[in-house]
Amino acid sequence: MPLGYNNPRLAEAARTPAMVRAITSRPALGSFPSQDYAALLESGILKAAPKGLEQVFTATTGSDANETAYKAACIWKGTQERGGKDFTDAEMSSVMDNQAPGAKKYSIVSFKKGFHGRLFGSLSTTRSKAIHKLDVPAFDWPAAPFPQLKYPLEEQEVENRIEEDRCLKETAKIIDTAEQPVAAIVIEPIQSEGGDNHATPYFFQRLRALTEEKGVLMIVDEVQTGVGATGKMWAHEHWNLTSPADMVTFSKKAQAAGFYFSRADLRPDKPYRQFNTWMGDPARAILFNAIYDEIEKGDLINNTAKIGSFLYSGVEALAAKYLELIRNLRGKDRGTFIAWDCSKRDKVIALAREKGVIIGGCGEAVIRLRPMLIFQKHHGRSAMLGKVVPNY
Amino acid sequence: MPLGYNNPRLAEAARTPAMVRAITSRPALGSFPSQDYAALLESGILKAAPKGLEQVFTATTGSDANETAYKAACIWKGTQERGGKDFTDAEMSSVMDNQAPGAKKYSIVSFKKGFHGRLFGSLSTTRSKAIHKLDVPAFDWPAAPFPQLKYPLEEQEVENRIEEDRCLKETAKIIDTAEQPVAAIVIEPIQSEGGDNHATPYFFQRLRALTEEKGVLMIVDEVQTGVGATGKMWAHEHWNLTSPADMVTFSKKAQAAGFYFSRADLRPDKPYRQFNTWMGDPARAILFNAIYDEIEKGDLINNTAKIGSFLYSGVEALAAKYLELIRNLRGKDRGTFIAWDCSKRDKVIALAREKGVIIGGCGEAVIRLRPMLIFQKHHGRSAMLGKVVPNY
Repeated sequence: MPLGYNNPRLAEAARTPAMVRAITSRPALGSFPSQDYAALLESGILKAAPKGLEQVFTATTGSDANETAYKAACIWKGTQERGGKDFTDAEMSSVMDNQAPGAKKYSIVSFKKGFHGRLFGSLSTTRSKAIHKLDVPAFDWPAAPFPQLKYPLEEQEVENRIEEDRCLKETAKIIDTAEQPVAAIVIEPIQSEGGDNHATPYFFQRLRALTEEKGVLMIVDEVQTGVGATGKMWAHEHWNLTSPADMVTFSKKAQAAGFYFSRADLRPDKPYRQFNTWMGDPARAILFNAIYDEIEKGDLINNTAKIGSFLYSGVEALAAKYLELIRNLRGKDRGTFIAWDCSKRDKVIALAREKGVIIGGCGEAVIRLRPMLIFQKHHGRSAMLGKVVPNY
Repeated sequence: MPLGYNNPRLAEAARTPAMVRAITSRPALGSFPSQDYAALLESGILKAAPKGLEQVFTATTGSDANETAYKAACIWKGTQERGGKDFTDAEMSSVMDNQAPGAKKYSIVSFKKGFHGRLFGSLSTTRSKAIHKLDVPAFDWPAAPFPQLKYPLEEQEVENRIEEDRCLKETAKIIDTAEQPVAAIVIEPIQSEGGDNHATPYFFQRLRALTEEKGVLMIVDEVQTGVGATGKMWAHEHWNLTSPADMVTFSKKAQAAGFYFSRADLRPDKPYRQFNTWMGDPARAILFNAIYDEIEKGDLINNTAKIGSFLYSGVEALAAKYLELIRNLRGKDRGTFIAWDCSKRDKVIALAREKGVIIGGCGEAVIRLRPMLIFQKHHGRSAMLGKVVPNY
């Protein structure tokens, strides 16, 4: 929930005739988009697009945002390898039996501890916890190592650089030697479900260069990090990439879902290759427009950056006092995306809840903060004093 | 769209405070369901449940309704094979690399020409057209033959029975010899996207018996056929099964999505095995309640059965006149789920559209009718006379 409960502007959007129409007359968007759907996207989802990614494919959940992005990558690679030629007869017939050459043995590389969803394709790239994956068939896709940084970052620069270079080298090796050719890599700006694991802009810049060098696509999964929480609209804007990622996926705080892309060749070359009945949800696109308006009007991203610094300093001060409960504090200059290792994680979360403060867990023993974008200093003070956070 | 445009009861539901709340404050249902979510399902989605399937897992689209059902089947099979024991260390570690024994080499068997969605798992069971599948990696899952019936059914009973027995025998063989043990088979009551292909109740009864005998689950995909269009709420109710299917999936006309199930052991044995952020959408559950009320109040399923007979007779009369344009007419006693082979399919659809009549295509050269549940005789007469169907 990006804006808390009972936001009057969202309630207003939910009561408009356009919303009533979107709810009661949901079209099969691929075949029968409403006349105003393009305008709706242009005034919201596309206005919020990351720099360099001016097109969007709308979807319904984070999982299917990622899977449609993976499909786009595989279709792109297959099309490229055919060099503009039509499908062969062998491709057309073998694909009906799920066999090569029609069903390609491509892989999507993800990173250890990454989380990208729970459907069969996305779950094959999820590597955060065994419980998500057990008993479910998975594609034989490789996982690259994600840097394990040491904290505080300022004091560990040399060692962390060595670690990031090691991971980049290993990723390059995986791309070079993968039995199933790599169509894309997918990565979170901050591995959220996996434990709020960060890497530096240097790592992501080099990773981008690596994907360009190797001719594989780079998909940035911003399902958790997107829409303001890191103090920028999109977390990957912290990296200052000179060449934008190929695709950026979103859901959660956007309420709408899908992926942004720029390259024209990521549009399939023929109709019905990337298609489904709903292809997103106009009702959620309308809601996103209201969310985005509120973010702009309230300057909520700058607010999140500021409140994040305030929260970070507060937790840092506590960390000096409670050495075992707050270790490896992370999220400096990343808005309210703040987390730390805690030896008594579950107990602290339960105690906080008793006091009216909802905080979350991730990874093995990590506490993560995920306040809404409207979070203010007085909420932070209340939370730190263990008082009930007033309803907004 | 089950009830046409501008249905006043749906618009009323869309304007309720409950809907505004569902739109503006969408919860992560698995962790934070609203207090009234169970009651909401009980007064709608569960009231409409097929006999014998009194539980529901809510999802967001037809594809993820099927994939969560497939996951439930794989988790069920894995749990059964462990015989109540906990996961082994080998399972826990191998699954993180997408390898056995943790990631099971189970298969989901579907039928040739079947359509079950377009994400990686569901697309692996889709067998209707190559264009949906090309370049996308797929699981090495087998496809069974779906009966190819001859028409009119009354005159081809002997030959059709032989064909159905052949398909059953072949399916049994696939289950017995599959390299990757079969967790479930998935089947549409009428293969829709694949060409409106029917089988008889005999076939489905025997298929149910076969799955029980072999210890594999039977998933009935009612994404297209569900919610009244065949003259029953669920198309599989035409089969008079003595033992209900294990799972029935739904979306489209329900606007909400998910799968029904009965067996308690289809609930995963541990939390977070079958889980995601949205796990359905309360807004769509509210809408379904209004849809279901309208269906009940308007006796729309009986209406669809009657109007279906009327339409079928009309097309049958035309078929006698236009032998090449209307062949293999099917859908007798299946409500408005009527279709036929047509040598000039695309031309007929285009001409009809020019005259204001929207009809659909499926399969290679099939015309299918899919009117809304509110379709009346006068709409049918207008359509057959090539006049504009008045807006409802």
